[in-house]
Amino acid sequence: MDSATYVGVIGAGECTDLTYKTAQNLGFEIGKRGWILVCGGLGGVMEAAAKGCVEAGGMTLGILPGSKRNSANPYIRIALPTGLGEGRNLLVVRASDVLVAISGGYGTLSEIALALKAGKPVIGLETWEHIQGIQYVSTPDEVIEKIMKFD
Amino acid sequence: MDSATYVGVIGAGECTDLTYKTAQNLGFEIGKRGWILVCGGLGGVMEAAAKGCVEAGGMTLGILPGSKRNSANPYIRIALPTGLGEGRNLLVVRASDVLVAISGGYGTLSEIALALKAGKPVIGLETWEHIQGIQYVSTPDEVIEKIMKFD
Amino acid sequence: MDSATYVGVIGAGECTDLTYKTAQNLGFEIGKRGWILVCGGLGGVMEAAAKGCVEAGGMTLGILPGSKRNSANPYIRIALPTGLGEGRNLLVVRASDVLVAISGGYGTLSEIALALKAGKPVIGLETWEHIQGIQYVSTPDEVIEKIMKFD
Amino acid sequence: MDSATYVGVIGAGECTDLTYKTAQNLGFEIGKRGWILVCGGLGGVMEAAAKGCVEAGGMTLGILPGSKRNSANPYIRIALPTGLGEGRNLLVVRASDVLVAISGGYGTLSEIALALKAGKPVIGLETWEHIQGIQYVSTPDEVIEKIMKFD
Repeated sequence: MDSATYVGVIGAGECTDLTYKTAQNLGFEIGKRGWILVCGGLGGVMEAAAKGCVEAGGMTLGILPGSKRNSANPYIRIALPTGLGEGRNLLVVRASDVLVAISGGYGTLSEIALALKAGKPVIGLETWEHIQGIQYVSTPDEVIEKIMKFD
Repeated sequence: MDSATYVGVIGAGECTDLTYKTAQNLGFEIGKRGWILVCGGLGGVMEAAAKGCVEAGGMTLGILPGSKRNSANPYIRIALPTGLGEGRNLLVVRASDVLVAISGGYGTLSEIALALKAGKPVIGLETWEHIQGIQYVSTPDEVIEKIMKFD
Repeated sequence: MDSATYVGVIGAGECTDLTYKTAQNLGFEIGKRGWILVCGGLGGVMEAAAKGCVEAGGMTLGILPGSKRNSANPYIRIALPTGLGEGRNLLVVRASDVLVAISGGYGTLSEIALALKAGKPVIGLETWEHIQGIQYVSTPDEVIEKIMKFD
Repeated sequence: MDSATYVGVIGAGECTDLTYKTAQNLGFEIGKRGWILVCGGLGGVMEAAAKGCVEAGGMTLGILPGSKRNSANPYIRIALPTGLGEGRNLLVVRASDVLVAISGGYGTLSEIALALKAGKPVIGLETWEHIQGIQYVSTPDEVIEKIMKFD
């Protein structure tokens, strides 16, 4: 079995250009290291991270809420339509060894909570504040440093 | 079909006597009105609310994380073992018309987030603070008042 | 906790008058004994069994594929919208101590298979033939006799 | 998005050498064509098909019942622990454009039924007999021919 680290990147389905760039940079660093990017497969942060990862030659797994594969963004290499709606959030968490939250709304908050409940590390970058257990950082580089310590 | 209101009560599986009493009082008010109590079926806040509801002659539905029915607390009338682990949290949300969060840890936070994501009202009583969207109150009576407005 | 037997009745969402009558009779016998009827909450066999059960004063749990409670048939006392589509079939199985298959298509076949996989008794009445493991009978009375032996 | 065909191979977790060889040959043909192999990630037919696919340089997605990634067989490139038990069977079906059943017990039967219910093609090779809707064939080559017609 592939012993690569699976990094879940969770965040808003729509985001500012600045957040997009941050997520894309993070995705690039993930792909460069041969880690596998896990995400919800849609737009915004999910798309940006997948784009960066693929640009670095990396692998991306998109776990989709709907039952149609073609709802995945163009940078998803393996698209898994689940038909579970927000139920797929739990699968994003279970598929990931570590999660990075970038911005995000209630869906992201549910993933943060499920990850912390499962005892998985959650790194936060400009996301939900004051959640005990999140390891807050300020840059993609710091995210990578943190992940390398778990690895 | 039964047109009763389904009230989800979510909260910690272990709690103080004071919190237990609060949840039990709330459960009693729910049962008294013929509303159906939905919860995760285990101990702490879930047990207290179910106890209060049954004492008022009400109906309780416990949606369990495990696959054994006998993990339900003694006040659950209908026990549904799901075998989905924390995946059952989404079902608690989907089964409820309105949710009340009392204290609680990460599991409760995931339910709050999933409920708000689904656009369902979430009433908070001594629970996760500073979550935008939660309607914070201070007593079981205020919870009931709020629910009666949605009803 | 309620130690009642939970009987899952699975079958086609549309059926002939004869099959409807059979399922209704079975539901009546289930309700009469204080057993809890579990089903998929929709029409045909599910509705007929729930109708019979309610007519005998019994309790009915409908585990719905969609996310709207009002898709339940009028004889469902506790309606659980799951939003999981056919994923709810597994929950019908997990909620039941014993299952009875009456007629049915592919959805029913999936429930039969999941129940047998879980080691639960499956009683078949005019349903999928030649499935090893199903205990085939010819009348609702024989179903009840079989369940009483497990009980 | 990757427009590859996703082929689900479903079958027993333990199998004879002959069945293993058949599944491995099929996996090789799948991998050779750049199709993505989806399976339940465990042993027997799942392992054999994944082994063949990887030997042809192909991609394999294993959707696991448990919550530990290391339960995957050694030929799974992307391992998704779901923690859903047999609930993962539905995800194998939803992730696949077409399914091939080789031998198999009740778990496989549940996947066949869920796939047919979803209107997806199911090709059968020495598997459950007399299930209306399965397209029965006798060799891996015939499986490939059938898939190429859908493709």
